[in-house]
Amino acid sequence: MDKQALAEFFTNDRFAALTGAELVEAGQGYCKTRLEIREHHLNAANVVQGGAIFTLADFAFAVASNSHGKIALAVNVNISFLKSVTKGTLIAEARELAQPGRLGAYEVRVTNEKGELVAQFNGMVYRKREELPVQA
Amino acid sequence: MDKQALAEFFTNDRFAALTGAELVEAGQGYCKTRLEIREHHLNAANVVQGGAIFTLADFAFAVASNSHGKIALAVNVNISFLKSVTKGTLIAEARELAQPGRLGAYEVRVTNEKGELVAQFNGMVYRKREELPVQA
Amino acid sequence: MDKQALAEFFTNDRFAALTGAELVEAGQGYCKTRLEIREHHLNAANVVQGGAIFTLADFAFAVASNSHGKIALAVNVNISFLKSVTKGTLIAEARELAQPGRLGAYEVRVTNEKGELVAQFNGMVYRKREELPVQA
Amino acid sequence: MDKQALAEFFTNDRFAALTGAELVEAGQGYCKTRLEIREHHLNAANVVQGGAIFTLADFAFAVASNSHGKIALAVNVNISFLKSVTKGTLIAEARELAQPGRLGAYEVRVTNEKGELVAQFNGMVYRKREELPVQA
Repeated sequence: MDKQALAEFFTNDRFAALTGAELVEAGQGYCKTRLEIREHHLNAANVVQGGAIFTLADFAFAVASNSHGKIALAVNVNISFLKSVTKGTLIAEARELAQPGRLGAYEVRVTNEKGELVAQFNGMVYRKREELPVQA
Repeated sequence: MDKQALAEFFTNDRFAALTGAELVEAGQGYCKTRLEIREHHLNAANVVQGGAIFTLADFAFAVASNSHGKIALAVNVNISFLKSVTKGTLIAEARELAQPGRLGAYEVRVTNEKGELVAQFNGMVYRKREELPVQA
Repeated sequence: MDKQALAEFFTNDRFAALTGAELVEAGQGYCKTRLEIREHHLNAANVVQGGAIFTLADFAFAVASNSHGKIALAVNVNISFLKSVTKGTLIAEARELAQPGRLGAYEVRVTNEKGELVAQFNGMVYRKREELPVQA
Repeated sequence: MDKQALAEFFTNDRFAALTGAELVEAGQGYCKTRLEIREHHLNAANVVQGGAIFTLADFAFAVASNSHGKIALAVNVNISFLKSVTKGTLIAEARELAQPGRLGAYEVRVTNEKGELVAQFNGMVYRKREELPVQA
């Protein structure tokens, strides 16, 4: 699937939209997303909440893992938080770690504007036989 | 810290508020949170987005791990998604797996209204020497 | 499957045997294993190597997840190391977190002789349609 | 620290030695290890046991994370098993994901002779103030 078809399908991810995560690029086994940090992303300690970072990364993971046209469900994610952030823009880049099969492994790196690693996200999906409900 | 002091501090978690996660109970090393599923929690496949489930669990994790009065930063989380959900109410319960020290380990179980396990979340924190900025 | 059938099949786990991990109890979705710490389990810092603890826990995970008679392959494991150990006996107890399906989630708690948590292990399996090659 | 100093210190990792994991290369924040698969690495299903793969990767992780001269303790590891193996040689390569600090993040990729990804290992360490007990 190309970026346009993926973007059209994923425009319906309402929680990503609520969070403010935007799709920047997408292709076979790849996706880049972006989040402009605003006050509603902060937690009680005044840094970006883990859930906001997770959602940004998870959105990139969902697009990359569904890019082969079969529905892919996240089964497990491991995320390491390496740097606190309070403002600016976050970028998440998802890529495939192995040839896509019934199970798939992806990594997503979340970086700040200086390219510093904010979070490392590793996710696995289980791929259904069902096709993504998009128009060819 | 008791529930009132924790609730007061965590009322400032703006991303949890945006998501709609509510604090139900809190105490030493323990917290229960709740999320009423609404349409804006759904993803493109019409099930609750992983980020919404993560945020609910992460909120319970943050409260439980900060309940000893020292600032606790999440360093790693592993989450397994066991059941897709589309509506109803989700409950997350966080509890401490080991005596609190410099490093802490917590588990959060996310269940639906029937008590079925929706997600299993395991998180580690690094505890700073700094006290939580709350009034005694 | 009962303990005897599982024990017979798993007696062929040669790496568990090399490590010295022993099967103590087993049943539907459950297993307990044990390791007597010896000098060859230590690492360069003179504490039990992470791989020895992992192997003990993984053995319990394998037995518990295969106990329903279908071949279960580990797809992901997350392990948190909470306490260093140098001697004595370690016990690992695996239990099922959710109803067994195509995907399964298990937790294994590794404790020392005082019952203190040494490591928390969470694993997921993918279950094949193939039966375990054991005699009925 | 250079390869020689690291190799000398880690020659004392007795569990890595029992497993047969060998140090191939090491440097600042980096390590490569190797395992020649033998029958005693197999599990009851006749594939290499997860614990053997973990130990190989963990050995590389330990060397890479201790290479800055401060004692680094593993606090959490997440491992995804992507391909079953039965024979040949496994290679594990560890590298640092972020600038070394009190907490450190590492990834280890385990591949077979064809360069296919067998397992993806992500680990975090907590670094003590204590120096590694090696001669300058």
